[in-house]
Amino acid sequence: VLTESELIAFISRGRAGAPARKGDLGIGDDCAVLKVGARSLLVTVDLMAEGVHFDLAYTPPYLLGRKAVAASLSDIAAMGGTPRGVFVSAALPAKTKPAFARALVEGIHEEARAAGAAVLGGDTSSSMHRIFLDVVAIGEASRRGPILRRGARAGDAIYVSGTLGASARGLELLRKGFRPWSRRLWSRSLLVRGREADRRRDELVAALAHLLPRPRLALGRALGVQGLPSAMIDVSDGLAIDLHRLCDASRVGASIELARIPVDSAAAAGRPGRAPALALGGGEDYELLFTAPARAERRLMAIAERLREPLARIGRITPARRGVVLVDGSGRRRPLPRAGFEHFRSATRTT
Amino acid sequence: VLTESELIAFISRGRAGAPARKGDLGIGDDCAVLKVGARSLLVTVDLMAEGVHFDLAYTPPYLLGRKAVAASLSDIAAMGGTPRGVFVSAALPAKTKPAFARALVEGIHEEARAAGAAVLGGDTSSSMHRIFLDVVAIGEASRRGPILRRGARAGDAIYVSGTLGASARGLELLRKGFRPWSRRLWSRSLLVRGREADRRRDELVAALAHLLPRPRLALGRALGVQGLPSAMIDVSDGLAIDLHRLCDASRVGASIELARIPVDSAAAAGRPGRAPALALGGGEDYELLFTAPARAERRLMAIAERLREPLARIGRITPARRGVVLVDGSGRRRPLPRAGFEHFRSATRTT
Repeated sequence: VLTESELIAFISRGRAGAPARKGDLGIGDDCAVLKVGARSLLVTVDLMAEGVHFDLAYTPPYLLGRKAVAASLSDIAAMGGTPRGVFVSAALPAKTKPAFARALVEGIHEEARAAGAAVLGGDTSSSMHRIFLDVVAIGEASRRGPILRRGARAGDAIYVSGTLGASARGLELLRKGFRPWSRRLWSRSLLVRGREADRRRDELVAALAHLLPRPRLALGRALGVQGLPSAMIDVSDGLAIDLHRLCDASRVGASIELARIPVDSAAAAGRPGRAPALALGGGEDYELLFTAPARAERRLMAIAERLREPLARIGRITPARRGVVLVDGSGRRRPLPRAGFEHFRSATRTT
Repeated sequence: VLTESELIAFISRGRAGAPARKGDLGIGDDCAVLKVGARSLLVTVDLMAEGVHFDLAYTPPYLLGRKAVAASLSDIAAMGGTPRGVFVSAALPAKTKPAFARALVEGIHEEARAAGAAVLGGDTSSSMHRIFLDVVAIGEASRRGPILRRGARAGDAIYVSGTLGASARGLELLRKGFRPWSRRLWSRSLLVRGREADRRRDELVAALAHLLPRPRLALGRALGVQGLPSAMIDVSDGLAIDLHRLCDASRVGASIELARIPVDSAAAAGRPGRAPALALGGGEDYELLFTAPARAERRLMAIAERLREPLARIGRITPARRGVVLVDGSGRRRPLPRAGFEHFRSATRTT
């Protein structure tokens, strides 16, 4: 007998229907892959439900539109692909104000435009209560083919782009009532100096990281064109969970060093003890996590420098039997939990 | 200043984002078209919201899954294409019972399997109140290219497959409390003869037409392979509305004859006076409406015969200035309203 969650997973994992065509890939990666002639098309879907994925109390409609599209585009980046078009289905309550709908649509279009993707279609419906946005992104893999999650080999180095944890910190702040657009906040901020000013700047940066994530499209495409990564995934549910996913798909283990994880300074500020938890377990960073053989490092760093994208080597792929391991500052090794922020908050508490 | 409905139409019509690539088509057809090398990929999205598009009071979850997929597949048929894969996003309330979810997923997979399409992915979310299903279908156009809405020329004949009106009649019955799976209905039905038996059979057929529509995939594909239609659309919102859409896209007029419209006998039974309204204005028939030059008729009829799909020639394309016209039984011509069932019910009442 199947459980409900297994059943629901069935929908998204494509174990049935007709068998996928040879060369097509429907299961367990950032995008499905459809072979069309010599090219590989990438398709991904992200569903965002009000009250589950976002809260209108702290999400302006323009940023909601941008983020819904950004989340799907990040999956294209994670396959080393180039976005081509998006389709947006939106269910909006009848009471939705025109200004709200206009801002939402502007955000959708602006995010697509910035990525060079056309808004090619979609569907709309009224909704009885809440907003639902379902965004399909379609992209093309590079001529070298898509970069899958399953290609990591023991000995490969593990890299992550950008910095981690700011989005989760931003979500905390927003839930506590922090409103980055509050006029009072801005007028007061002009009067403070020193640490207090730094704290306010960090709060703004964190809230913005959550509300307006920047998918690493240029980096993902450049990595795809050169075909350097052996495996890649985007960090949408937290470094720990997404590293586990990559290792599961590749049937390998990994060892990462806590000290090498690029914790965002906005996540660290104020409460440095919690920053590792935010960086390991916080979601929605939309950075790229990938592996590559050691010989690729010089070319990787050249790409990162050219694109001005920070890139950190955080560890190494190991044989599967070693498991996925976190090495802390004192050299102690322990299994990296397949868990989100709530877990790490207690597990890594240092004060 | 834009109205709300214009804004929402923006999302689905793709007037912004980045410009679509040359050869791509994102606006105003059954599917978007993406050129990939020499092939044309077809992409369509259909959003179904509980309380708007379906009512669980009369929609068993297995049939809901089938119909959600069928509606998207019908758009692939309407471009003369072959389905390749589907992606299903589902938002289900936390209270959803496992048996319900299982039946829904079985319906999704069975409909995809029957069409030769793989379930390649999707996304799931909990929902606070209602069910939302967003189905993406991806297909390939024939090597002759997709059949668009915009190719009809004055002088072309107008054809429609199958029969019309049964789905709308079924919806009426279901809304009035008719339950085709009621045990009482079936046990009683065995006892009656003659007209009463015919009526019950018609009611069952109509309810089934609404709950389990059959997209005309084989016919659509065969028409696409031979490249016979000059323009095509599926009848999802009613013959009148969808003929107007085809004529708008092609910048032509049309003249159709009421007497030639293939009214489903299940729609006609019992209340024959209302059947034309159901056939013209009732939605969700998922038949194919297309145009073709007169010289194609023999080949069209041969395809229809081979596939055992009824095909009716209902009229002719005219220059745009003639408008879209309905010719009734007494030869009277009048503009065909761009309207659904409610309008036609009063306009065509004969008793």
